[in-house]
Amino acid sequence: MSELSHRSGVPVGTVKYYLREGLLPAGRATSATQAQYDDEHLQRLTLIRVLVRIGGLSIAATRQVLQAIDHPPASMHSLLGTAHTALATRTEPLDEISPEARERTDQLLQRLGWQSVQGAAYAQLAVAIDGLALAGLPATDAELDRYAVAAEQIARGDVAGVPFDSPDLAIRWVVTKTVLAEPMLLALRRLAQEHVSATWLTGGNGDEAASPTP
Amino acid sequence: MSELSHRSGVPVGTVKYYLREGLLPAGRATSATQAQYDDEHLQRLTLIRVLVRIGGLSIAATRQVLQAIDHPPASMHSLLGTAHTALATRTEPLDEISPEARERTDQLLQRLGWQSVQGAAYAQLAVAIDGLALAGLPATDAELDRYAVAAEQIARGDVAGVPFDSPDLAIRWVVTKTVLAEPMLLALRRLAQEHVSATWLTGGNGDEAASPTP
Repeated sequence: MSELSHRSGVPVGTVKYYLREGLLPAGRATSATQAQYDDEHLQRLTLIRVLVRIGGLSIAATRQVLQAIDHPPASMHSLLGTAHTALATRTEPLDEISPEARERTDQLLQRLGWQSVQGAAYAQLAVAIDGLALAGLPATDAELDRYAVAAEQIARGDVAGVPFDSPDLAIRWVVTKTVLAEPMLLALRRLAQEHVSATWLTGGNGDEAASPTP
Repeated sequence: MSELSHRSGVPVGTVKYYLREGLLPAGRATSATQAQYDDEHLQRLTLIRVLVRIGGLSIAATRQVLQAIDHPPASMHSLLGTAHTALATRTEPLDEISPEARERTDQLLQRLGWQSVQGAAYAQLAVAIDGLALAGLPATDAELDRYAVAAEQIARGDVAGVPFDSPDLAIRWVVTKTVLAEPMLLALRRLAQEHVSATWLTGGNGDEAASPTP
């Protein structure tokens, strides 16, 4: 175990905790006090570490994600739904969302022609629409459409990249990219905002006009 | 106070907690046991509620955001930086990020021609790049560029919408949209992934080919 800890950079106490929580399978016992861990243990340990430390997932959410990886759903499409449900930071009960927000969400999906179940992502969208309205700065239809167009563009590239011919790799891919590409996207949006505002508001040193009219 | 609680839908105990934490200014005392709260209190209370419940901000982060709203920075551009720093879920010390991830982040920003300080958003991006590499699924340059293009498109619309002529409203706008448009964007990306994968993988009922080649 100390070798596993050394190779992964994860403290022994943390490795023991993951073993106790059932996230990491036990090693093959070679004596009363020794167990053997192989490369699969090392890979699994690295994945847990990434999900917990960088993805910010709870132990319970991590367990759900690992279960999805160990038991990939039969249909490749339901794979995405499974991953999204396991990765939902919290599931809002639909009845806590205002009827107005649900209606606007439904209208948006209809305008876009998107097929959708009323799952975790649907609830998250409706909650955000509710929140913006509550904060006195409701999202306009134009704003929702603008975000949706960008989101669809990203999603097309995402789905095109999934290695669907290998179910094992595909679920690992979907889970990892869902967890880790999200902070990446948000960081890029913030950096882009800072860049655009710097260019517009300081007179710019790029191709932009000095006025915030695009 | 019970009227304030009633009008905002926030329990009296929670209102008292926000008062104690200094998030909500005290009302004008009208007697030993009564205080008067006005519409400004109601607006502030609603904003706190939205930041905490829907934005998922801690009390400390909420306090920082409110301070930014109460004391808008002199330059309108530094307003974005202030908001982003206050809203960073956690700031990674730059020396915990691998030199490789920092180099890739710098190269990306250079390719894009984005001006950037090495602030919270920069660190978040580098951490995500590190995480994807650790998970064995490193982001390719093409993938980073693809996300960046979509992010810039969103950011242009965002910045164009900021009511820069009113500093008070502008900071409120930036903070609220930063906190609440993020879950909206992530939800839309997940919904778009589900839609695209449904269309491709089930043979489709839309305009798409049945093969995952865009």
